[in-house]
Amino acid sequence: MGCSAYCFHCLFDHGTPVILVVSSKKVGFIFRLLQLCIIVYVAVYVCWYKRAYQERDSVISSVSTKVKGNILTNSSAFGTHVWDTSEYVIPPQGENSFFVLTNAIVTQGQTQGSCPEIPSEFTNCQSDSDCKEGLKEIRGNGVQTGKCVQYSETIKTCEVLSWCPLENDTVIPKPALLSAAEDFTVLIKNNIQYPKFKFRKRNILRHINSTYLKNCTFNHKTDPHCPVFRLGDIVTESGEDFSIMALKGGIIGIFIDWSCDLDFNERFCVPKYSFRRLDNKNPENNVAPGYNFRYAKYYMNNENTETRTLIKAFGIRFDVIVFGMAGKFNIVPTIVNVGAALALLNLMKVICDWFMLNCLSDSEYYSKHKFKHLKPKDESETFSFTDQSSYGTP
Amino acid sequence: MGCSAYCFHCLFDHGTPVILVVSSKKVGFIFRLLQLCIIVYVAVYVCWYKRAYQERDSVISSVSTKVKGNILTNSSAFGTHVWDTSEYVIPPQGENSFFVLTNAIVTQGQTQGSCPEIPSEFTNCQSDSDCKEGLKEIRGNGVQTGKCVQYSETIKTCEVLSWCPLENDTVIPKPALLSAAEDFTVLIKNNIQYPKFKFRKRNILRHINSTYLKNCTFNHKTDPHCPVFRLGDIVTESGEDFSIMALKGGIIGIFIDWSCDLDFNERFCVPKYSFRRLDNKNPENNVAPGYNFRYAKYYMNNENTETRTLIKAFGIRFDVIVFGMAGKFNIVPTIVNVGAALALLNLMKVICDWFMLNCLSDSEYYSKHKFKHLKPKDESETFSFTDQSSYGTP
Amino acid sequence: MGCSAYCFHCLFDHGTPVILVVSSKKVGFIFRLLQLCIIVYVAVYVCWYKRAYQERDSVISSVSTKVKGNILTNSSAFGTHVWDTSEYVIPPQGENSFFVLTNAIVTQGQTQGSCPEIPSEFTNCQSDSDCKEGLKEIRGNGVQTGKCVQYSETIKTCEVLSWCPLENDTVIPKPALLSAAEDFTVLIKNNIQYPKFKFRKRNILRHINSTYLKNCTFNHKTDPHCPVFRLGDIVTESGEDFSIMALKGGIIGIFIDWSCDLDFNERFCVPKYSFRRLDNKNPENNVAPGYNFRYAKYYMNNENTETRTLIKAFGIRFDVIVFGMAGKFNIVPTIVNVGAALALLNLMKVICDWFMLNCLSDSEYYSKHKFKHLKPKDESETFSFTDQSSYGTP
Repeated sequence: MGCSAYCFHCLFDHGTPVILVVSSKKVGFIFRLLQLCIIVYVAVYVCWYKRAYQERDSVISSVSTKVKGNILTNSSAFGTHVWDTSEYVIPPQGENSFFVLTNAIVTQGQTQGSCPEIPSEFTNCQSDSDCKEGLKEIRGNGVQTGKCVQYSETIKTCEVLSWCPLENDTVIPKPALLSAAEDFTVLIKNNIQYPKFKFRKRNILRHINSTYLKNCTFNHKTDPHCPVFRLGDIVTESGEDFSIMALKGGIIGIFIDWSCDLDFNERFCVPKYSFRRLDNKNPENNVAPGYNFRYAKYYMNNENTETRTLIKAFGIRFDVIVFGMAGKFNIVPTIVNVGAALALLNLMKVICDWFMLNCLSDSEYYSKHKFKHLKPKDESETFSFTDQSSYGTP
Repeated sequence: MGCSAYCFHCLFDHGTPVILVVSSKKVGFIFRLLQLCIIVYVAVYVCWYKRAYQERDSVISSVSTKVKGNILTNSSAFGTHVWDTSEYVIPPQGENSFFVLTNAIVTQGQTQGSCPEIPSEFTNCQSDSDCKEGLKEIRGNGVQTGKCVQYSETIKTCEVLSWCPLENDTVIPKPALLSAAEDFTVLIKNNIQYPKFKFRKRNILRHINSTYLKNCTFNHKTDPHCPVFRLGDIVTESGEDFSIMALKGGIIGIFIDWSCDLDFNERFCVPKYSFRRLDNKNPENNVAPGYNFRYAKYYMNNENTETRTLIKAFGIRFDVIVFGMAGKFNIVPTIVNVGAALALLNLMKVICDWFMLNCLSDSEYYSKHKFKHLKPKDESETFSFTDQSSYGTP
Repeated sequence: MGCSAYCFHCLFDHGTPVILVVSSKKVGFIFRLLQLCIIVYVAVYVCWYKRAYQERDSVISSVSTKVKGNILTNSSAFGTHVWDTSEYVIPPQGENSFFVLTNAIVTQGQTQGSCPEIPSEFTNCQSDSDCKEGLKEIRGNGVQTGKCVQYSETIKTCEVLSWCPLENDTVIPKPALLSAAEDFTVLIKNNIQYPKFKFRKRNILRHINSTYLKNCTFNHKTDPHCPVFRLGDIVTESGEDFSIMALKGGIIGIFIDWSCDLDFNERFCVPKYSFRRLDNKNPENNVAPGYNFRYAKYYMNNENTETRTLIKAFGIRFDVIVFGMAGKFNIVPTIVNVGAALALLNLMKVICDWFMLNCLSDSEYYSKHKFKHLKPKDESETFSFTDQSSYGTP
């Protein structure tokens, strides 16, 4: 045979393994059963449930929020006061996290100066020797001057340099100042994108009209696509009581799940909302429970010294957390999974072979026919021509 | 044979399937063609296009932004007023989302009190009976006192407790107060990290010097790596008209794509910028179009009552959205894909076998040689020794 | 044979390849070696190191932060002044990025008006002709009036309309105003979730009690799970010097790594903290080094004109960056990897076959027995019945 003929053979000869067909019901049954399991697993679990034939991408998103509502309060700190959005939403701009004030401790007319500390085990004193000039007690409110002064008729505390008079936050207003905030509504606009699939969508769906949007309120059953949420409903759905949570504040997560199967029409890709409290309300293994922060409004008083109103703001921070994965058919993961399934089917064959060659009464008989034992050439030049007899020495 | 000899056989015997080589041009041609397809698919699509041999990681990023520019306006609300960054960027700190004020409705000298509502279908009244004490009309601006009072000479509206005088936002200044804001520039600093690959980079590339940075402006063609962007350019590139968008505001996404192939030198890993409007400018299926929020500056007036200037701020919120996936060669996905390709090549063999055994004129002849039919032992003890004749009963 | 009998055969016949067993120590050794490599690779690298049998999900997180500490400063700009959290944390609300003021340039009593520019190569002038009315020099501080006025006795600069007097930020206070801020502590609360596995956890672990939390400070060795961090420690761990960084500010990343193997008990899933400077301190290929922004406090002065105190705030922005991937056993990736390993084992067989058929002295002998060459039917009707002799024509 010439070289070109050899190449031709290389290219177009088709090698196919010689197959021994065994007519054993046991082995056949086991094999078909295993095959069926693999096929059912691949069809049901891999394809239908896990959609492993899909390429995946995670969502990128942009959120804007807008809170609405007015409250009239009548408290000793504020007098009769109407609260509007620009006062109780801090900061006023609605991004993917917004804070609604529900309670406040107000300290008016603070100026830089010195005054007695709020009584506590770290600040109480008997004489000047209990106070240390320059000490910045981490649980205190200022820098000690070293003097021990009268806080009230009976209690003496160290004097501090600070914004005076000091805030006394030991008593929290109860009921919460703005407990009526549960009637406020928030409009959440969310724009998402799956860059790999060039897919974009808004949470205000295309078939919803402006009239509906202006009057609806979100409800899981009746209005699942309305982007306007009542704060009280959000808190209730996350399993909390608004009036209790309003006292010390907390963090509520508004989860928007955009998990989508993009092999279907894009109109099936809709956001699913859920709500959950994120901070720990359990007083054990906790520190600084609730959610609060201090901010101040600065003024110049008539003597042209800087004065401020310090507000310790308790309230609920709502975190809009957008997540989700989109899947779309792609040939690479498909082939990877088909390949894995084929390899498994092969493995099943090997298992059946093993069963056939070890567990059946006819095993030796099958193995005799399945294996052709070939001895190294030197010792078996003639032997190989009588290979059927080699079946006798497994 | 002894036991150790048996183990020795187990360990070092090599089993290889007996192959029937068929010299059929048809089958050979189909097989090679299928093989070629698989190899081309793996080489071109899987390896080159999808880079399926790579392990992936998604980006984590930190952004800081700084807006620059001054504007002189001459409006009835502000008089001659020069705006600097600390006034029109709200909040002043530049994080991955910054807001530039472009238009404003200013209501000066508000104090807590009562005043007639802004006329609307919900607030107009004929007599006190049309108003309800304590009502917090959600589309209103305060809490009704129950009185119906003169708003203007011809219109009567319900009186409300609120910050008075009320803001009238029915007329938006046109052209926008700060429409010249399109000349502002923003410096975006972005620091990214792919934790899995311990890869870090900045959007200010290493070969760029400070002199260039101080004078350049981003341009897709001429300055694609300059981190200083003109606001007007961003808006134009996202397909919008700045002067129109400045009226009612909106949200623009500044997308920074850090998709990288880390098998190449890290200097090829550069950010790609793109811009797109994120909010819905379509008036249908929309509510509260544009982007605005209210904030207030608080003062103590001469009678020591709290006074505020309320500003309804319209403007453009720029969201810097950093995304991307980096890939780097890893043996696990490589082997998974090689394995899948091998499984596919095997499948091609099976397909060719099926073709050979079913679609060719010589099928029966091939099948006679490929299959050795083995009957269960009891009925065929002798038969098996004459297995060539079993080819006659497929 | 009838049709049903044929179907029966199709269903329960088991085909198994006929195997040629070669007793060659060389081939056997190579094969076992390759097999061992694959198995070790799969067991050690794929399963143990890469955990490729796991399904993965990325973390979603919510962060709240609270800074504590007081500082007494004595500077020309502020006089004796005690700083509390509401003053030096800007904005006051603790989200996943918080800014601590460390240095400041204060310009008091600014009102809208006209004044000479700060001298620089762009603003110095000799006469009015060097200034251009209406010019908004991008590196300047206002809109030029067109006049050239005396800035100091020797220097003349263009006059601008702006908030006057202008801020002069050429000299930065040194040492930093609040360089003592390194003693401040920050409490970081982090709540994470892996939605795919319905797994939730907090960085305040369940076994930690409130008493410990109130007194601990994070330390990699002694207190790795304490959520209270000293700012100075954070900066030191990221390889910086607080007193130097405090001068011009910067950005520090607080990385919380939640990478977890959820096949183990959830108590092993704990956050790992690390710290790194994110901005570029290198003066080359940099612009606007450090981190600063300007904000203002607005007042009405006695003549009822708006006055402001402008503060150029230098400081450290701490970005809490939460990342991580959780893995949990799942059958789909397991089977994909098992499939790939099986395909590899098969490939090893092919390689051994190739070695056996090409590199051994007995190659021809082996190949004679491995391959049964089958000629097309027409030319070889009789030949096929003597296929053992076909071994003679490889």
